[in-house]
Amino acid sequence: MGPAVAKQFRTVAIIGLGLIGSSIARAMGASDPGVHLKAYDFASEVRQQARRLNVVHQVTESADDAVSGADLVILCVPVRAMEAVAQSLSRSIGKDAIVTDVGSSKSLVSSVLRRILPGARIVPGHPVAGSERSGPEAGSAELFEGRWCILTPDQHTDPDDVEAIASFWRSLGAKVEIMSAQQHDLVLAAISHVPHLLASSSVAAVAALEEKHGQPFLEFSAGGFHDFTRIAAANASVWKDIFLSNKEAIVQVCSLFRNMAERLEQLITDEDEATLLQELEQARQVRLNLNVNS
Amino acid sequence: MGPAVAKQFRTVAIIGLGLIGSSIARAMGASDPGVHLKAYDFASEVRQQARRLNVVHQVTESADDAVSGADLVILCVPVRAMEAVAQSLSRSIGKDAIVTDVGSSKSLVSSVLRRILPGARIVPGHPVAGSERSGPEAGSAELFEGRWCILTPDQHTDPDDVEAIASFWRSLGAKVEIMSAQQHDLVLAAISHVPHLLASSSVAAVAALEEKHGQPFLEFSAGGFHDFTRIAAANASVWKDIFLSNKEAIVQVCSLFRNMAERLEQLITDEDEATLLQELEQARQVRLNLNVNS
Repeated sequence: MGPAVAKQFRTVAIIGLGLIGSSIARAMGASDPGVHLKAYDFASEVRQQARRLNVVHQVTESADDAVSGADLVILCVPVRAMEAVAQSLSRSIGKDAIVTDVGSSKSLVSSVLRRILPGARIVPGHPVAGSERSGPEAGSAELFEGRWCILTPDQHTDPDDVEAIASFWRSLGAKVEIMSAQQHDLVLAAISHVPHLLASSSVAAVAALEEKHGQPFLEFSAGGFHDFTRIAAANASVWKDIFLSNKEAIVQVCSLFRNMAERLEQLITDEDEATLLQELEQARQVRLNLNVNS
Repeated sequence: MGPAVAKQFRTVAIIGLGLIGSSIARAMGASDPGVHLKAYDFASEVRQQARRLNVVHQVTESADDAVSGADLVILCVPVRAMEAVAQSLSRSIGKDAIVTDVGSSKSLVSSVLRRILPGARIVPGHPVAGSERSGPEAGSAELFEGRWCILTPDQHTDPDDVEAIASFWRSLGAKVEIMSAQQHDLVLAAISHVPHLLASSSVAAVAALEEKHGQPFLEFSAGGFHDFTRIAAANASVWKDIFLSNKEAIVQVCSLFRNMAERLEQLITDEDEATLLQELEQARQVRLNLNVNS
C-alpha cells in the first residue's frame, strides 16, 4: 500500500518522537522509503536517540524546520502539549499541508487545533495502540498492524483530507474507523481511561492496606491483579494528561462503572445467587463474543 | 523433595478433580510416584476424563471409597460445596487422617469443616495459583511451581500437622505462608476477589454502553481492557461461590477501592495536576517494587 502514501504525501513532518511518533517513522520507512521524512522532538536527548536509531531522513533542530515544506504534519506530542506546539508552529505550517495528530482524547485537542490553526486542513486522529512503554527506542514498525486508528473529522474537515489520512494509516497496517470526537472520547473513556483509573486506584488501595496492616498483600497476587499492577505501571505523566484532557467523558463513565460494581456488590450482600451468576455469565460472554485468543 | 511426602503420607485422597485437584495429582505424580493416590469427582464425566488422563492410581466410584484408608484427604471442591462434601465424608475419613482443602476463602470453609468434622486434624489451605481455566484437562504438574500456598490454622490445629501440610505443598513446588483465616480473606479480597469484581462489572458496563449507543465500543479495546475481559471470562459459577463465601471482606475492600477511585476522580475533576501525578506515580512504583517481569 506504499504507493497510496507516495502519491499523496512527499514530505512528512513528525513532531514528537515518543513511542507513537517513532513507530510511525519506522512503519513509514518500512512501507514507503520514497517519502521524505523529517522529525523533531522537544527533548534534545530524544533527537540524539532518533539520529542514532536512524528512523527518519532528517532530525531537525527546530520544530519549524521540520514542518517547513511538509505536506503532512503529524503532531505526536502529549495531548496537553498540543496547544503550545500548535501555537509555535502556526506560522511555519504550509497552508496546503494536512495536519493530523495522535492524541488519546479528541474533543479538547480538536477544538484547540481548530482555534489555533484556523483554516488549516485538520484531520484529528488517534491510533489505539495500547502499550505501557514509551520513548523512541520502544517504537516499532508493527505497532499499528491490525490495530484501530480512529479519525474524528468535524463539519469543517474536507472529506478528501479524511480519505488521505485514512489511507495513510492503512498503509501503516491500521484499520480505520471514523466517528465524532465526542463518540471517540466516550468509547476511549470506557475501554481505556476509566479501566486504567480503576487499575491504578486498586493498586494504590492495596498498597495502603499493606501499610495499614503491616503485612504483605501484593506479594500474594497472581493472575488478574498482576495485570492491574502492569496497567498501573504505565507512564504517570502521560496518563495524568489523558485523564485531564478527557474529564467529562471519564466522570460520566466512572459513574456508570460504579453503578455496575455497586450492583454486583449488592447481589453479593443479598446473596442473590441466581442474578449474580447471570451477571457474571453475561460479562464472561462478552469476551467469548470478542473472539480473541490468549 | 519427594521423600518428605513419602515419609508423611502413604495414601492420599483427592476429592474433586478440577483444575486444582488434577494439578495436585499431576504434581504429586511428578514429585513422588511412591504415594498411593486415590481420587473422586462428583461428575461422572470428570471421573472418566481423569481415568483417561491417568493422573491418579485409582479413580473411585464413591467419595467414601476414595477417603477410606487415606492418611491425607484434600478437598478440592468449590468453596460452597465444602459443607455438603464434608458432611458426606464425616464417617469415612479416618480419625488419624489430616484433612486439608484448597478453598479460595478461608473463614467460612474453616468454620464449616471444624463444625462438621469435630476432632478431625484439619489444616485449611489455599494455593494461590490464578488461572482462568478449569477442569481436569487444564491441570498441570507445574501449576504450583513458585506460587504461594497460604495455610490458615486456628487454635485447634496441631503445629505438626501444619508442618506436614506445609512440606507437602513445598514438595509440589509452592512457597508456604501461614496466617489467620481472617487475614487470608482480607488479602485475597484485595488482590483477587474485588479486582475480579471490578473487571467483571467494567466489562458489563461497557457492554451496556454499547447496547445503549448502538455502536461498537469493545472492538476498539487494546491493552488494559483486554486483560479485564480475560479476567471476566473466568468460570462464572466458581466466582459466584468465591464472592458469596467471602462477603464481609469483599464489602470492606470494595469500600476502600471505591474511596481510592473517587479520590482520583476528584483530582481529575479539580484538575489537581500535581497530586494526580503523585498518586499515579505511587501506584506505578508498586509494580516496580514488586520486581516482576512482563
